[in-house]
Amino acid sequence: MENQYELYMRQALELAAQAARLGEVPVGALVVKNGRIVGRGFNRREGSKNALSHAELIAIDQACRTLGGWRLFGCDLYVTLEPCPMCAGAIINSRIDHVVFGAYDKKAGSCGSVINLFELPYNHFPTAMGGILQQECAGMLSDFFKQLRK
Amino acid sequence: MENQYELYMRQALELAAQAARLGEVPVGALVVKNGRIVGRGFNRREGSKNALSHAELIAIDQACRTLGGWRLFGCDLYVTLEPCPMCAGAIINSRIDHVVFGAYDKKAGSCGSVINLFELPYNHFPTAMGGILQQECAGMLSDFFKQLRK
Repeated sequence: MENQYELYMRQALELAAQAARLGEVPVGALVVKNGRIVGRGFNRREGSKNALSHAELIAIDQACRTLGGWRLFGCDLYVTLEPCPMCAGAIINSRIDHVVFGAYDKKAGSCGSVINLFELPYNHFPTAMGGILQQECAGMLSDFFKQLRK
Repeated sequence: MENQYELYMRQALELAAQAARLGEVPVGALVVKNGRIVGRGFNRREGSKNALSHAELIAIDQACRTLGGWRLFGCDLYVTLEPCPMCAGAIINSRIDHVVFGAYDKKAGSCGSVINLFELPYNHFPTAMGGILQQECAGMLSDFFKQLRK
């Protein structure tokens, strides 16, 4: 039986698959509060022609709207790929408690790979846990890039 | 006579003043390409109830729309306060070349104060220059907080 982390990560993977179908790098994210999904997003950088359209920012934006405030206290963020510095910074700014990610990102990951922004002396210190459904999350990305090179 | 940096920073200060009039922490930003302002923003975190509504993100979002793409090659960003990690990350992601900021932010500044994200091994390396019209930029912030405490 899958644990709660894997169940939510599987939903993030479904969002990532939607990105892939649109020709976008497949990353999906959700924000969860007390067992309720309050924000969803998938990467749309190419389609939206916008550098801010990462899965996490779209999910955080939606969560702020759903909850009616900028402080996402008591919220967890699930994402299929380790957040970049922009998204890790948005997680700090929105006061998200916990981040659960799938694949590690050696090039831009900012929850431990390049740096752990959550350990720097900003004003909020989320926790991060990586490697949840890692094989599926990383596999979806590598399949996407293989397909691109065909 | 004021130099180009100061002329643009004065326009960013005008945007910051708009934020102050709305009761928002006064920070203003603009994106400039070849002498043309392609994006403007001021902090609207409280009014928008959204953690993403920093001046820089709003200006970058507008610049992507103006220029019709997510890569802001050849663009400079002017902002009255040193960018936080979210905004510094967005600057990296959008491929902005140069950042010019006014006041330093010892608590969250991520272009040298807490850390310099632009020196980490991500895939883009903007330059940053701080202290332009520093007194005016810092003064507008301290006046705002003094007023709040009255």
